[in-house]
Amino acid sequence: MTEIIEVTPTLDQYAFTFGGVAPLRKVAPGSVLRLWSDDAFCGALRSVTDLSSEKVNLHFVNPQTGPFYVEGAEPGDTLALHLVSLEPARDWGASATIPFFGGLTSTDRTVMLQEALPDTTWIYHLDSAARTVQFQARHSEHRIDLPLEPMLGTVGVAPAFNEVRSSLVPDRFGGNMDTPQMRAGTTCYLGVNVEGALFSIGDGHYRQGEGESCGTAVEGAMTTTLIVELIKGSAPGWPRLEDDDHIMTVGSSRPLEDAWRVSQVEMVTWLSELYGLHTMDAYQLLSQISETPLANVVDVNYSVVTKARKSLLPATAAFDGLHDDLRARAAELTGA
Amino acid sequence: MTEIIEVTPTLDQYAFTFGGVAPLRKVAPGSVLRLWSDDAFCGALRSVTDLSSEKVNLHFVNPQTGPFYVEGAEPGDTLALHLVSLEPARDWGASATIPFFGGLTSTDRTVMLQEALPDTTWIYHLDSAARTVQFQARHSEHRIDLPLEPMLGTVGVAPAFNEVRSSLVPDRFGGNMDTPQMRAGTTCYLGVNVEGALFSIGDGHYRQGEGESCGTAVEGAMTTTLIVELIKGSAPGWPRLEDDDHIMTVGSSRPLEDAWRVSQVEMVTWLSELYGLHTMDAYQLLSQISETPLANVVDVNYSVVTKARKSLLPATAAFDGLHDDLRARAAELTGA
Amino acid sequence: MTEIIEVTPTLDQYAFTFGGVAPLRKVAPGSVLRLWSDDAFCGALRSVTDLSSEKVNLHFVNPQTGPFYVEGAEPGDTLALHLVSLEPARDWGASATIPFFGGLTSTDRTVMLQEALPDTTWIYHLDSAARTVQFQARHSEHRIDLPLEPMLGTVGVAPAFNEVRSSLVPDRFGGNMDTPQMRAGTTCYLGVNVEGALFSIGDGHYRQGEGESCGTAVEGAMTTTLIVELIKGSAPGWPRLEDDDHIMTVGSSRPLEDAWRVSQVEMVTWLSELYGLHTMDAYQLLSQISETPLANVVDVNYSVVTKARKSLLPATAAFDGLHDDLRARAAELTGA
Amino acid sequence: MTEIIEVTPTLDQYAFTFGGVAPLRKVAPGSVLRLWSDDAFCGALRSVTDLSSEKVNLHFVNPQTGPFYVEGAEPGDTLALHLVSLEPARDWGASATIPFFGGLTSTDRTVMLQEALPDTTWIYHLDSAARTVQFQARHSEHRIDLPLEPMLGTVGVAPAFNEVRSSLVPDRFGGNMDTPQMRAGTTCYLGVNVEGALFSIGDGHYRQGEGESCGTAVEGAMTTTLIVELIKGSAPGWPRLEDDDHIMTVGSSRPLEDAWRVSQVEMVTWLSELYGLHTMDAYQLLSQISETPLANVVDVNYSVVTKARKSLLPATAAFDGLHDDLRARAAELTGA
Repeated sequence: MTEIIEVTPTLDQYAFTFGGVAPLRKVAPGSVLRLWSDDAFCGALRSVTDLSSEKVNLHFVNPQTGPFYVEGAEPGDTLALHLVSLEPARDWGASATIPFFGGLTSTDRTVMLQEALPDTTWIYHLDSAARTVQFQARHSEHRIDLPLEPMLGTVGVAPAFNEVRSSLVPDRFGGNMDTPQMRAGTTCYLGVNVEGALFSIGDGHYRQGEGESCGTAVEGAMTTTLIVELIKGSAPGWPRLEDDDHIMTVGSSRPLEDAWRVSQVEMVTWLSELYGLHTMDAYQLLSQISETPLANVVDVNYSVVTKARKSLLPATAAFDGLHDDLRARAAELTGA
Repeated sequence: MTEIIEVTPTLDQYAFTFGGVAPLRKVAPGSVLRLWSDDAFCGALRSVTDLSSEKVNLHFVNPQTGPFYVEGAEPGDTLALHLVSLEPARDWGASATIPFFGGLTSTDRTVMLQEALPDTTWIYHLDSAARTVQFQARHSEHRIDLPLEPMLGTVGVAPAFNEVRSSLVPDRFGGNMDTPQMRAGTTCYLGVNVEGALFSIGDGHYRQGEGESCGTAVEGAMTTTLIVELIKGSAPGWPRLEDDDHIMTVGSSRPLEDAWRVSQVEMVTWLSELYGLHTMDAYQLLSQISETPLANVVDVNYSVVTKARKSLLPATAAFDGLHDDLRARAAELTGA
Repeated sequence: MTEIIEVTPTLDQYAFTFGGVAPLRKVAPGSVLRLWSDDAFCGALRSVTDLSSEKVNLHFVNPQTGPFYVEGAEPGDTLALHLVSLEPARDWGASATIPFFGGLTSTDRTVMLQEALPDTTWIYHLDSAARTVQFQARHSEHRIDLPLEPMLGTVGVAPAFNEVRSSLVPDRFGGNMDTPQMRAGTTCYLGVNVEGALFSIGDGHYRQGEGESCGTAVEGAMTTTLIVELIKGSAPGWPRLEDDDHIMTVGSSRPLEDAWRVSQVEMVTWLSELYGLHTMDAYQLLSQISETPLANVVDVNYSVVTKARKSLLPATAAFDGLHDDLRARAAELTGA
Repeated sequence: MTEIIEVTPTLDQYAFTFGGVAPLRKVAPGSVLRLWSDDAFCGALRSVTDLSSEKVNLHFVNPQTGPFYVEGAEPGDTLALHLVSLEPARDWGASATIPFFGGLTSTDRTVMLQEALPDTTWIYHLDSAARTVQFQARHSEHRIDLPLEPMLGTVGVAPAFNEVRSSLVPDRFGGNMDTPQMRAGTTCYLGVNVEGALFSIGDGHYRQGEGESCGTAVEGAMTTTLIVELIKGSAPGWPRLEDDDHIMTVGSSRPLEDAWRVSQVEMVTWLSELYGLHTMDAYQLLSQISETPLANVVDVNYSVVTKARKSLLPATAAFDGLHDDLRARAAELTGA
């Protein structure tokens, strides 16, 4: 029976950066980890009277569980993290409109002279039987049950060239991509920049719309089970994802069209690699099949996902079929 | 039995602008139209040896069938166009990488000093039985059958304030939004800016990826059956769409984040109107349910769609339930 | 002695678009015009109690004096307008923070959910002897005299391809570029798109900062004396300016970096033409000498000016030395 | 007589990040430093046959002289660096069009499918008597002498919140702002984020156009004499500059309009602080006096400078008149 490495960090063990932090522990490729992560607010918003401007230190949000040192990982390698399951670790989640943070407000970058939107907190109660979270309006009696769709906002490795980035940042190293695609059943491929890769995860969302408009999802503590694998070499330029239905790339930059361009060119490259297509043919094919949901339009960099549906393409074996192998291992673990 | 007004324009009857053109004919609210539209290239690309730089006048693309003067339409009213069916009018479609046009090339706006990508044409053959179009690589032997998913790139009315815009432009008046959501079964709501509304349609696509990466879809002549309706007053600020599963808004601007913001705020407004939600509650709710596929990242303005899934929301009756009514009328027409 | 054609439009003679308007009169190349133009608000803001939200119809601002049909002008030609003098036609100017308009507020494109900034009007009194306008703070007793530096916000021709654009828009056809460089002593070169060119001017500013941050300058009625010239052929891709010290190009687009790119590539092209420089050498040279003040970051398109200082370059004769010739003719007119 | 601390780093002493590096040495407030800095390419481009793609490791450019630990500096304080003199340390400078780097080419962020521009190197010879550098075209015989105008591309402190950023990055901490305003006679004010501030300088330019179009200036080794001062508290949100004629702010972000917004709002804040102006009055005043040259449109963030001319404003004493004091100290040092 597979050993599962369980990690529940103490408060002083959280990391708030990608890079710049000593590893929490070493793990071998093939390891299965069960990781507890706190919510983006470090659990500080527990009722609608808890305001982000009073309770949250914005420079210490997105606490990371990790980093983990992957034995044998070297720059140029590819780290594969397969998400086996994501289970809410609390029976409530929180969301908030943090002053000058979010997509439909001026921010510290898109800075205006207007007053901030009201600092408001919403608490979502989880019905674990129905697998829903409940939206409760703050200014009326509306209550709407929404399906529980757990995902991770942040999955990342240490950046290249000795940089250290806040856990609010998504970029080439992954990080705070905030895409609903980062859910159970997905494999995430990240290029390794430093010895040991030094990956971490966090920022669990019980559900999130594409774009994460107000800047926060239904933020919740999460128990994540994942399998760690290592591919020697083959580091992609930008994060790649795979699930049973799609291969996907994630671009993160500003303005938003550049995030899109990054994800598109990465997918053109991937399609060319997989099928031996000429770049112009891959560009043409992608033009007719691309699915491109926004991930976030609120973080330090914005993130866009480009998806190519496997059923539209000839049979593939990205990264030598690792995803299918990981799915099989995950099924054994979950008894599915 | 409903009369169907059939219009097949002669070559000199096409419009290449929204606004600035005399109406092709008058129609009454409630009319059913069956409109033939040529492809974006005016049919100039018929084989892979036809190059856009030689055969296409880029200032006369997206030929519009129309404009139609809707009796009784006045500024401030809402035009509703329900797409009953879209049927390819030829057994082939064309796509091309027009020099300095598209999303992964420098353009006349995002202008660089680099050479253009190769001017290349792809022809897609339509299998009407299988309802597929076939991608044929130009630089290898790859052939991939893709599902036929007909849509219209352009649906628009005359702009406000006496402006006249090229049929390449999407904006508040609709126009060249290039979203795959503009398909059979969708109702499009547009604010009326001038007497008679003066709507037109064109730019049929046999299928298109989200973003229309290379700047052109599988461009094809189309036979569109649609129902025209008029709502007095209630003009939305930006185009709204509705199908059986979603209410949707379309924002068009640059940079891409502004197109997204426009579609998001329009949806916040719509949700507030429909449910009596406070703006902050609508913002919060949208943050957790928004689906936001890109439409185009290649036109004069970029377009982003914000979708809210009806099944996640309390029962609605947008525009007094007009969509359901139009669906019923469409079913009668098609005998479905 | 040179005849001067004087034009003071009546209220119903103003144009509010580039294109789409019948010519006010015909003029021959070589003509000298003295044109009265009203301020951007059509004179509606005359005291600090006049608010833009109450007195100004935002869709009828920037009233244009013109358009003028230039005899012999054909598409592909170059219209040269030399500004001989700009004299304030009133002893006061007005500025205002129009709700949701300006650079440091959300707008109808960069749309947010925040409240508008306060609608505020400032009146600047002109001291014609001292040639100053006086800033008077609205919320304190501060008064600051600023030098009078008259300029025109809008100088444009009819757009190409049958488009008609609001007089709020800058683009290839010139228009609402809002650059302080458009002042007495400057020659403006615009590509001709339609027979007669159909140019107009307006939107006088008694002074303006680079960027026009709040969206309005010290707006004032203006008497503009200009010489009209026509160069057969040689139409530049984008507006070019020349004064005694600089050759300049103006790019207008969004995001702001694209406006800059447009102006830069136009200058690379111009330097290559003037000196026979290879594109890469012109790019390198421009990189070390470019002066790039912002023009506006508030209009439908943003505008950036690229300037190359003549004293840094070998002697030039742009457009066959027309600017020097026009300066001589202007000196005769003004007796300078 | 003032002691001058001379520092010429050895090759292994250069820093390539802001933050994350141990201090080179401690200095007391009031110290005068004379610092040797290598050029951005670490001296690797010495003739036109040296190509950046062969000789330069793009992840180790902009070698920093420093960091210096300023005694007594604590987070929230303001570091003032007064540039006394900048003297070229070699008799030649180099510039290059690095593949996929620069403003008029696609890049790793604004990524396109086009081929790179040719990798080309230019060497500029310095005439120290004439104080010129000579542009020599690579594709023709053109030679143009340009005035020597030495400046520093990078001046920065360690970032906040434990981040470590590449020396290619400009942001709140200063860094690679690449503005020609960073020249002898300028005082640079930076907020302190960590104990000791940990400032460094580098990336000398013998001259540079506004925008640094091709991505590189006339890059040259530099001997910089500067005075270090410390103001307790008063940390500005973004870098502020002052010379005898202007107070200035520098914003760095993407897209370019956001860099502009940042610099504008920082200046609105500064004007409000200096004169007790209401925010709306400061916004209005700035709208009429702002000078806004671009700094760079090529780095990880773009940079825009907002300048307010002192002669247009009532007499000021920013930071208690420190700039004037530093000018006097500098004059003593240089015997001017």
